[in-house]
Amino acid sequence: MDFPDVTLATVILWLDLVGTFVFGLSGGMLAVRRNLDLFGIIVLATAAATAGGAIRDIALGDTPPAVLRDLRYLLATLAAGLSAFFFHRLIEMLSKPVMLLDAIGLGVFAVTGSQKALDFGLSAPSACLIGVLTAVGGGVLRDILVAEVPRVLREEVYAVAAILGAAMVVLGTSLGWSPVTTAGIGFALTVVVRVLSVRFGLRMPRAR
Amino acid sequence: MDFPDVTLATVILWLDLVGTFVFGLSGGMLAVRRNLDLFGIIVLATAAATAGGAIRDIALGDTPPAVLRDLRYLLATLAAGLSAFFFHRLIEMLSKPVMLLDAIGLGVFAVTGSQKALDFGLSAPSACLIGVLTAVGGGVLRDILVAEVPRVLREEVYAVAAILGAAMVVLGTSLGWSPVTTAGIGFALTVVVRVLSVRFGLRMPRAR
Amino acid sequence: MDFPDVTLATVILWLDLVGTFVFGLSGGMLAVRRNLDLFGIIVLATAAATAGGAIRDIALGDTPPAVLRDLRYLLATLAAGLSAFFFHRLIEMLSKPVMLLDAIGLGVFAVTGSQKALDFGLSAPSACLIGVLTAVGGGVLRDILVAEVPRVLREEVYAVAAILGAAMVVLGTSLGWSPVTTAGIGFALTVVVRVLSVRFGLRMPRAR
Repeated sequence: MDFPDVTLATVILWLDLVGTFVFGLSGGMLAVRRNLDLFGIIVLATAAATAGGAIRDIALGDTPPAVLRDLRYLLATLAAGLSAFFFHRLIEMLSKPVMLLDAIGLGVFAVTGSQKALDFGLSAPSACLIGVLTAVGGGVLRDILVAEVPRVLREEVYAVAAILGAAMVVLGTSLGWSPVTTAGIGFALTVVVRVLSVRFGLRMPRAR
Repeated sequence: MDFPDVTLATVILWLDLVGTFVFGLSGGMLAVRRNLDLFGIIVLATAAATAGGAIRDIALGDTPPAVLRDLRYLLATLAAGLSAFFFHRLIEMLSKPVMLLDAIGLGVFAVTGSQKALDFGLSAPSACLIGVLTAVGGGVLRDILVAEVPRVLREEVYAVAAILGAAMVVLGTSLGWSPVTTAGIGFALTVVVRVLSVRFGLRMPRAR
Repeated sequence: MDFPDVTLATVILWLDLVGTFVFGLSGGMLAVRRNLDLFGIIVLATAAATAGGAIRDIALGDTPPAVLRDLRYLLATLAAGLSAFFFHRLIEMLSKPVMLLDAIGLGVFAVTGSQKALDFGLSAPSACLIGVLTAVGGGVLRDILVAEVPRVLREEVYAVAAILGAAMVVLGTSLGWSPVTTAGIGFALTVVVRVLSVRFGLRMPRAR
């Protein structure tokens, strides 16, 4: 299956907007749980939603970051913060919502981070690292801001899921797959690995 | 009232230096309270004083950041750290000094951040966001470094005050006001809103 | 003693790789102590090893940062993380290993940070500041990620040791010494001051 007239930039933009919204929701929901006020919710939503992409763009030298050039990012962030404020009970009823939103954001940003890094001429391992940074950056800032050890260090299979998605993007691109196909498989891989690892309590080895 | 021969760059520079000094003092005073040594005081003063402007300049692609190009920033930072070390009792006697210094720095950096972002061609909402980031960045780093949840999340009306000041700059600039007038009104708005909110315990709504 | 055919870039690269490895080890060992899993170890090793150099390069506008352009940095980081995972008992038997590794990384990055900043045309005080940021950046991120107050604020003589090494580089360069000699003396000065300060409990003055 292929969508030859969808450009790489378009894929990155729309995935980025989805990732921005879901990470924003995860930040907003965490702020609601911590009993923060409306602007605390928006601040935490903004931090979670935009930090990963901003780190990616600043590291690639593509400044100002996309989040500052394209208003849709800020609209997605604001929508996420307000959704958390008004609809947090509804969102909470869906089980483990922060975890699932986080997994979707993780998959989206692992894909856009590594695709954009390849687009900027970085090597395969560096593109994977940028993918992981983009994926985990927002969550790390979100958790640090409320003085929690970030999920990426606490959770068993987290960075691993992002690495797999980013590596799939690198592999698919080197095999000449279309951006949409590559992004879709990479995204699905990250989300599935992340959700299954939580569902079945998969564990990484520890030092004895 | 207008000062037509004062350039925008001059306004930004001098406000920036004032903001650097007062945020530096806020960092230094927090370090004194935490019983840190002389260099801990200087480190925390430097973090509080320079992080906001550095984030602003790095996000705008204006590297190296102004704090590294113009020695007066480092001198202001060092002066703030040493003032906290030697005169902390005097500063402490003025009531709630860290709060007030923080409010002044907040107003200054909200103004310079948004003015510089407009100068670099960013849209109005992005200029507001840069203004807020510049204003809260130093305080966030200062608080994270001593393992506290940052003031921007704990305090009721904090980011709001910065947003109002930055929005006033964007509005005034679009109305063709002079940089000095615009900066003055934006600064005053942020400081007044922030100080009144602390004085009268103003609150933002919370999610139920 | 002089090595006239060793270029500044070569000195910076090799010192950087050594600093990357030892800071990576310090992050990995801290992760082992905190009972993190394999990928938590690699994440903390990566944060400790690469954040300082990345801050340096982003502040200097030299993007993408060296860590993303040269695969040897990632290999050194990965080697450090895996070493901490497999050989942590061996490393632990050497007394106070995290402290010593940290001191070596501090010395290396103080030197490469200030040398690269001078190379990019920054003034002497700014080059010192970049040197200190490069030296303490990785450790700060490492400690923040596990919700600890960073060593640079807790320890008595830490930033001071980095400042002395960076200042020595600035001095030596202005006196026309070779890069290798300058780097060697700056590195040794930082490590010796840091280790002696721990050994003999040297203290900086505190505000009364």
